[in-house]
Order: sequence, then structure tokens, then C-alpha cells
Amino acid sequence: MNAPLPHHLLPEIHQRDTPAALIDALKARFAERCSTALVVREQHGRDESSFAVPPPAAVVFAENTTDVADAVKLAGQFHVPVIPFGVGTSLEGHLLAVQGGISIDVSRMNKVLSINAEDLTVTVQPGVTRKQLNEEVKSTGLFFPIDPGADATLGGMSATRASGTNAVRYGTMRENVLALEVVTADGSVIRTGTRAKKSSAGYDLTRLMVGSEGTLGVITEVTVKLYPLPEAISAAICSFPSIEAAVRTTIQVIQLGVPIARVELIDSNTVRMVNAHSKLGLREEPMLLMEFHGSPASVKEQAETVQEIASEFGGNAFEWASTPEERTRLWTARHNAYFAAIQSRPGCKAISTDTCVPISRLADCLLDSVSEADASGIPYFLVGHVGDGNFHFGYLIDPALPKEREVAEALNHKLVQRALDLEGTCTGEHGVGLHKMDFLVTEAGDGAVDMMRTIKRALDPKNIMNPGKIFTL
Amino acid sequence: MNAPLPHHLLPEIHQRDTPAALIDALKARFAERCSTALVVREQHGRDESSFAVPPPAAVVFAENTTDVADAVKLAGQFHVPVIPFGVGTSLEGHLLAVQGGISIDVSRMNKVLSINAEDLTVTVQPGVTRKQLNEEVKSTGLFFPIDPGADATLGGMSATRASGTNAVRYGTMRENVLALEVVTADGSVIRTGTRAKKSSAGYDLTRLMVGSEGTLGVITEVTVKLYPLPEAISAAICSFPSIEAAVRTTIQVIQLGVPIARVELIDSNTVRMVNAHSKLGLREEPMLLMEFHGSPASVKEQAETVQEIASEFGGNAFEWASTPEERTRLWTARHNAYFAAIQSRPGCKAISTDTCVPISRLADCLLDSVSEADASGIPYFLVGHVGDGNFHFGYLIDPALPKEREVAEALNHKLVQRALDLEGTCTGEHGVGLHKMDFLVTEAGDGAVDMMRTIKRALDPKNIMNPGKIFTL
Repeated sequence: MNAPLPHHLLPEIHQRDTPAALIDALKARFAERCSTALVVREQHGRDESSFAVPPPAAVVFAENTTDVADAVKLAGQFHVPVIPFGVGTSLEGHLLAVQGGISIDVSRMNKVLSINAEDLTVTVQPGVTRKQLNEEVKSTGLFFPIDPGADATLGGMSATRASGTNAVRYGTMRENVLALEVVTADGSVIRTGTRAKKSSAGYDLTRLMVGSEGTLGVITEVTVKLYPLPEAISAAICSFPSIEAAVRTTIQVIQLGVPIARVELIDSNTVRMVNAHSKLGLREEPMLLMEFHGSPASVKEQAETVQEIASEFGGNAFEWASTPEERTRLWTARHNAYFAAIQSRPGCKAISTDTCVPISRLADCLLDSVSEADASGIPYFLVGHVGDGNFHFGYLIDPALPKEREVAEALNHKLVQRALDLEGTCTGEHGVGLHKMDFLVTEAGDGAVDMMRTIKRALDPKNIMNPGKIFTL
Repeated sequence: MNAPLPHHLLPEIHQRDTPAALIDALKARFAERCSTALVVREQHGRDESSFAVPPPAAVVFAENTTDVADAVKLAGQFHVPVIPFGVGTSLEGHLLAVQGGISIDVSRMNKVLSINAEDLTVTVQPGVTRKQLNEEVKSTGLFFPIDPGADATLGGMSATRASGTNAVRYGTMRENVLALEVVTADGSVIRTGTRAKKSSAGYDLTRLMVGSEGTLGVITEVTVKLYPLPEAISAAICSFPSIEAAVRTTIQVIQLGVPIARVELIDSNTVRMVNAHSKLGLREEPMLLMEFHGSPASVKEQAETVQEIASEFGGNAFEWASTPEERTRLWTARHNAYFAAIQSRPGCKAISTDTCVPISRLADCLLDSVSEADASGIPYFLVGHVGDGNFHFGYLIDPALPKEREVAEALNHKLVQRALDLEGTCTGEHGVGLHKMDFLVTEAGDGAVDMMRTIKRALDPKNIMNPGKIFTL
């Protein structure tokens, strides 16, 4: 179904054999919870990326840590890869069985294990999704802020170091995971960290596992921070004469230290798409969507400061909302951006980019990339967690036209290179997966990537933990 | 000078030979910047801990990254340990040459390399101290909040994952280091991270290095976050009828999400000592010292909320300060606590503890430890970054009385065990060093510590990077 990938983007497809003896052993151990049905395997052999590779040889549905450990041990005996699977929302090919192997589906491990409201922490199984988590902690008056677009699992979000719209105020998974339980490559179970808010006790294994994309272990438990639901929340949208004006407003808000909770950019192009999709009647100009959290007085003060800054940059058509319903309406544009964009070009596929730069470089990075995208003729949408210097283009390509994919990939390549030249990173929140291995080397350097490889080899000598992701060995 | 240590606290003293050929090679490379003078070696062979071991065989004064790399390469050729040295303020024996080797003094690498005020980042050499940094960024209207008691170097603070009084609001070195340059065990130079605020690009080598106590590399450059100086700052002290009342106030403040910048506990005992030392005339009751940062309105609001909570727990004698001079006066008690305590028992040495527990467990942990300390007859002081659940006892022992050290160590042992039982950590901010290796195993488990060892062996196969710290191989 997918167009062939340009050569330099082909994942390392080097399928290892999955011996029948392993499948037999898995069936003996897991009975009907080990599936080799093609439809199940195919569902576990893809994610939201546009790669197509053969699916895993089997899928194990784990129900607890021992299940995971046993599956890893069995796979290890046969030197067969294991790929952890939550709900399949990753974007960079993390879940694809590029070297064959088995998928360990942890979506049934979806219990909230303990809510420690008084400590603002919660411990969950890896298959709990962020929306489920927020539903389950709601009665405590607390919430979990990290919100990648998809309703991803906490395990997957930890594995990719996810973030989202609230990160500008609350941080990413890097700052919000306190501790993990992990099944390592030899099938043993370790805990990283405690529920203490800070610690200097040895190497930071928690942060090593967060963002390791399944290549060092399978996450079987996650302890994260929670936050008191703000006493007051206020949202606003504001239109700007140019992307530059919107970005300069954002930069100044951040530099002044306004504790803004969300500040999202949508370009005029994307506003047009959401207007068409959701009949919002918004001004088809670049727009910032903002949210302020705090006490009523603090929210008011933040909002006033931001409005003043925005006005200086020509921001207008400010619209405010403080009830949940009004806020939802304002945020519709942001929430529907992806779907509106996809529907603007029937049959298209979106190739998403994900760079992040120091905020002072954001205008430079964005504006040049917008010019290039405009010149390419490929339709696109642009949204950004601009308070963090992080933004996404979605190039809307016709998957039947290899040329379009090539142009989109070339745009992405230029964009990432620009971000790196501006002291940024090739991925703000999606991860490296299959798609950014070359960029990772450009960004981090051979020495740092070799250090990652050395760690990988030491912790996973058989190279069975989601091999072929982040880097090749 | 120090009393002999109880056997279980003896560091692994297993001095490796330092061949004359290495000293010759270092002298040839560094000339007078390689010293073998006993007084210089002794100064580099101790820190603020109470261990006494032979000093390093030589001290190299590095002036740039190439110096560090060359020193590490030469040491590596001879399988000789290297111990990075900043200003010698670590507390757990990190700097001690327990396996011999050479000290690499980076205190001359003390330049602020680039201030990126618009991005709220700064890049410094490792020998820059926190006070120097704040002096140099002052004109930008920004500041660096992490403040361990001592005027430590940024390199050392990164290596021990330091924090201090502002961590409750601004996080620790874990959250505030964006990127590092590191000389690895083979003498090569890597960079970890960029200046982007967030990234999902591969393993988090920055966080792996932060807190690794020199055992994985020598930090030669540090990029950290800065923060806008708050528009308004207000400080307060408040006395309480009991430690429990002070702690319960703190817990409620944190649970309500008040963005308090500092909340420090001083017990009545310590108030007595600072009164004697600095003639402050404070009520000799447990006391909280607090600071609020933000806009004038937000600071006022925070202060009112906290005062209300404190009153419910019997807090009184509230005293407020908002000018710098008044604030300094209020904070004198906290800043002088250590010296006041030391002077309260002439000739004594303080054995400091450093546990951190989930905040709901803080009262239990503290109160039982206070009872034990009171019962022991050993004088002590108690201060705490209680907003983070982190606190320090300082047992004031007579170093000539081995029995007192034994009692103090037994108190520490009980305290740490209690913290671990309450889901806390054996060290909130001082690190493991030589002193907490056993506790680390109890806290993290054999499997996690083995993972640390595996990483260490892989990244430092000759075991030359500050060996014998955190764990033994």
C-alpha cells in the first residue's frame, strides 16, 4: 500500500529466523494469549509511521510482569527479538519488526496500581493510557499533564520520552517519570528509582530507560508525578499578521517567565483546513492558542501580560474562554488540526516532522521551513508547541506518488538539518525509531552514538530488545 | 586526625601503583601544571567527608578540554585512576583516592563560555562556581537557582546531581542540565544533548552523566537552564509548636500546588545554636523559612495561602521580608546553621545525613529520627528542604571518640533504613560516594546496581574513572 521508500530511508530489514520451537514454547506458556494469526500480527507490525515491513512472528498478550519476563526469557533462549507494544501510536517505526521477532502486547496490563494523592504520584501498569489515567485520578483533584496527540500508553510515552502541549509548563516524560519497573534483556526485573521527588542514588537508570524506545528493556510499571488541577484555567486564541509575529510573541512570553501552561501555533493554512472541517469561522491567519493555569488572580495576570505582548506584535481578535465548554470550543482548532488536514486531501498520508530548537532560533527555523514548504507545492499543515521551540509540519502526500514522498522527505531533511544548525534536536518528542538514525549521528556525533551502542551491547548482548531502532549495531 | 572508621564504613582502599613513567609523562605534558607536592596532593585527597585515605599521586591542573583528555589518555595507558576535582566540597568521599591515581583539578576551567539570555541557557566550564555564575549572569536579569550549601562548581554539582533550597520550585541538576561535554574513559570527547529545551533523540546521556560521580567521564562543559529573576520576592519565617506542625504545614502547601520557591525547616535545637552564634533572638521553636517568587500579586497570594495554612497548624510569629536586606537577615538562620552548629561544640565534626522521602511520609520519618537522635545524647542539628521531603541531620561528634562516630553512624543507618522503608531514597542530593554503597544496594536492589556496574564496565573497561565510588566492581 505504501509507496516504496527512498533508499536512505529503508529500515534495516534483516529478518532473523523465529524457530518453531520458540513459538511452541510460547504457546505452551501462554496458550491462547500467544497468537500467530496474521491479522493480529499485522496489527502489531505497524504504527502511525509510513513504513511497511513484515509483521512479527507472534504476539504475546502479557497480563503481568512475570508474563513479560517469561516471554523475554524464552525469546532470549532463541536469540529472537522482542518488541513491546502498547496501543500502536508511535510515529517513527518503533514497533516494526525490522529484524523479525515477537511482539509483547502490554495493553492488558492496564491497571492503575496505586494513587498516592498526598504525594502527587501514581503508579500504573504500562498499558494504562493517558486519558484513562486522568479519568481514574479525577476524583483526587489531580491530573497528569503529558498529552501527546494520541491516547498513548504510559509505557509507550515513557519509552519515547513523549511530551505534548502542556510540556512548556509541566515538562516532558523526562521530568515526570519518577520510577520504573523494567524487564531487562535477560528477563530479570529491576526497579529504577523510588517515590522520592529527588535522589542522588547512583546512575539515573530511570532517565536511561525513558526514551530508550524498548531497546534496553520492557517497561512493566511506571510511577509518574501528578499535579493539582488548577484552581482556575483560562484559554485564549489570538490571530497574528504573520507567523513571525506569533512566534515573537511566544518568545517574549517565555523570556519573561510567564508560567503559561500551553502555547500552540497553528499556521493560516491549517486554520483554513480546520475552518473547512469544523466550520469554526476563525480568521485565516496564523494563530496562537494559549492556556493559563493557576489561581484566579494569577491566571488573570498572566493573561493580561500575554495580551499586552501580543498586541505589540499586532495580535488581535483575542478570544477568551474560562468555562470547560468554551475552552473546548477554542481548542477544537488544535485538536482537529490533524484530521482536518488529512481530510483536506482525500487519500493522502501525512509525513510528520518533529524538530525542536532553542526558542530564540524558532522564528528563523520556522520561517525558512515555511518558505520551502510553500515552494514545494506539497500541501502541509503546521502546528507547534512553540513555547518549547518544538513544531511539526505534516506534509500531505499522495502515497501513490513516490515523487511526493521524496519531496516531503527532502523537506524534512532540510528542516532537520536547519534545526541542528540552530543548536536544536532532530526530534523533540517522537523519538528516533527507524526514521532519524542518520540525523541522530549528525546531532549527537559518532562518539555519543557509539556510547549509546556500547551501553546497548552491554545491557542486551544478544541484541534482542527492539533491535534496529535508534541506531544499528 | 580522624577516628578510625567502623569496619563496615571503610572505603575499599586498594591502592594501585602509579608508575613513575606516568608521572614523567604528565610532567612532560603539563610541566608545572602537574604537581606531586604533598601539600597539593593532600588538598586534593580529601573533601568535606570524614574519611582519611592516602592522597593521589599527582595533581594535574587542567586549563581546557584537551588537557583533561590528554591526562585521561595518559592515565589510561598506565591503568591509573583519574579523579576529577572542582573545589572539593563534596560530602561523601567522592574525591578520595581510594585506589590511588591522579587528581584532575578543573578549577582553572572557570570561564562562562556563552550566555544565551534569550533562550534562558548558559554554557560554562566545569570549574565555574554557582556564585560566580550568578554574578556573571546578573546583568541579564536571569539567575541560576540550584544552591547546594557550598559554593560548589557546576561540574561537581552535575556529577553529584546536586540541588538545595530552591529545588522545590526549580528542580535539581537533573532537571536543569541541558547538555554536557564529557571526556570519556578512552580520552575522547563527546557532547550529550543540545540547547533545545526538550529532545527524544536517543539515550539520555546527559542524565546518565549527571549523578555519575566522575565514574563514567570527566565533565568539561555544562549547559544549564537559567530563570528570569522574579519580579517580586518575599521571604517569611514562622515558628511552630512542634516539628510535626511545621512539617504538616509544608505537606499541605505542596499538596495544594502553591509554587513556593523555598521551604526550609530548622528544628528548635538548631534555632538555639544560631541564636547563640548570630544573636538573632529567634523563638527557640521549630521554624519554617520560606520564600515566594513571582509577580507582586502572585507572591502576595502565595504568602496569604501559606500563612492561612500555617495558622491552622499553630504557626505564629510570622515575620515577613521583601527587601534584599530584610530577606538576608531572615535567611541568616538557615545560612549559618552549619557553622553555628559546629561552633556549638568546639572541635566537633559533623556527620551529615541526607535522606529524602515522599512528602506524605516526611513527618513519620523525621519524628522518629528526632526521637532517636534525642535519645542518643549526641548533639545534632536538623535542617531540611522539606518541600521536597529531603532533610539533613548533622550529628556533632567528637572525632577523638570512636564511640560517638559509631553511635552517629548507627543513627544514620537507622534513619536511612527508615527512609527506604517509607519509599524514599538514601541520598537526596549528596550522592553515594563511599558512604552509601550498601544503602544503594538496599534501595535499588542487586539487579539495578548490577546494571549500573555493567554500564560502568562497558564505558570504562580499565576502571580508571574515579573507581571505587557508588559501587565496587
